[in-house]
Amino acid sequence: MDLFFVHPSDVQLSHLTLRDQEARHAGKVMRYRPGDTVFATDGEGHLYKTELIETHRNHVLLELLEQRFEQRSHPELTLCLGLIKKRDRMEFAVEKAVELGASHIMVFKGEYSQKEKVREDRLESTILAAMKQSQRVYLPTLTVSSSLEEVLKSHGGEADIIVADETSVNEKISRGSNNILLIVGPEGGFSSNETGLCERWNAQMYSLGNKRLRTETAAILMVDRFRNTS
Amino acid sequence: MDLFFVHPSDVQLSHLTLRDQEARHAGKVMRYRPGDTVFATDGEGHLYKTELIETHRNHVLLELLEQRFEQRSHPELTLCLGLIKKRDRMEFAVEKAVELGASHIMVFKGEYSQKEKVREDRLESTILAAMKQSQRVYLPTLTVSSSLEEVLKSHGGEADIIVADETSVNEKISRGSNNILLIVGPEGGFSSNETGLCERWNAQMYSLGNKRLRTETAAILMVDRFRNTS
Repeated sequence: MDLFFVHPSDVQLSHLTLRDQEARHAGKVMRYRPGDTVFATDGEGHLYKTELIETHRNHVLLELLEQRFEQRSHPELTLCLGLIKKRDRMEFAVEKAVELGASHIMVFKGEYSQKEKVREDRLESTILAAMKQSQRVYLPTLTVSSSLEEVLKSHGGEADIIVADETSVNEKISRGSNNILLIVGPEGGFSSNETGLCERWNAQMYSLGNKRLRTETAAILMVDRFRNTS
Repeated sequence: MDLFFVHPSDVQLSHLTLRDQEARHAGKVMRYRPGDTVFATDGEGHLYKTELIETHRNHVLLELLEQRFEQRSHPELTLCLGLIKKRDRMEFAVEKAVELGASHIMVFKGEYSQKEKVREDRLESTILAAMKQSQRVYLPTLTVSSSLEEVLKSHGGEADIIVADETSVNEKISRGSNNILLIVGPEGGFSSNETGLCERWNAQMYSLGNKRLRTETAAILMVDRFRNTS
């Protein structure tokens, strides 16, 4: 089943409109034709079953046949990822986090990050593609932060904060919230300032084993360890 | 710590020789100079601490200072991976499997595989690079098989065979051997013939959760679930 993204503002009572890339993908690439069944999601929990009415250059008109709403699954996972130097590794980590069910992606510049900037548009495309490919109906948000402190502050004290830490041996986590902030540091690791911040925010250190893992690997495993698989 | 690969036949009593790519990487790229400390492994369990004596165009001479032998860790994991259509995803799966400690990589053409051929030389480079990067001292082997049956036959009945199966709900595995064969099917899934084969070989089906995962994601998670993390 191919899944398309329809912007929530393009969902009317009986009709939906795919636009731009999604429209071109449906019409030109996948060659859907009038009468074909098309599935779409608004990224806010709805799955729409539709029939294609007309394809145009930059939009595709769909008639709504059925809709289904899915509650968000819990726990709600936020992956907070230190910037990764190589773009393909960063995108791979984000893709896998979405595929495994992360609801929010935050990337941050750590004090020891070797990378300064990030192409937000590319990461957003990665997130959208991964949502569709894994047939999820919630579009994860993307936030880019200039520091770990900003990440922690933005989440207030509401979430359980769990940090992948290669120096830890702890494999037990105590959980008090349905929101989990998973923090994976940049390739250079955390500064002592950042480690202190984690302590002040009552973050729990978590071990992924005795071998040092690459940032993108740690990110994938952290999301897997804490996701809902039922 | 940078780790270089020295072919076992290039290890003498008091000296080691890096050749070709490894030599160029040490001399030209990393700019090691005479007197510098260089670490190398033979991929057979030895870690060598050496001093660089001379760099040449295609070889680098090292003097042995210390050596350490590490036993293979158990369980010994073999990842059997159906061919993945996109090369970067295939290489990513293999890289991560090595990073997480797989000892052997077998790729096979499933009946529903969409890909026919594989660049073995590239996968071997990926394996070597991942071994060095994750500072492991055993070089995983690579085998390319033309069918799942060939994979199963090559391992006789000695290993515990565990198959990632999206239709399964089983999360408990019974273990009788120190060798584990982890099987992840190609993107098209298994044919009924292949499913029957798994049954005849007493393979245990294993669930990675209720969502369908991409082949490379399933491969990474399977190795993580069964690796030794102590």
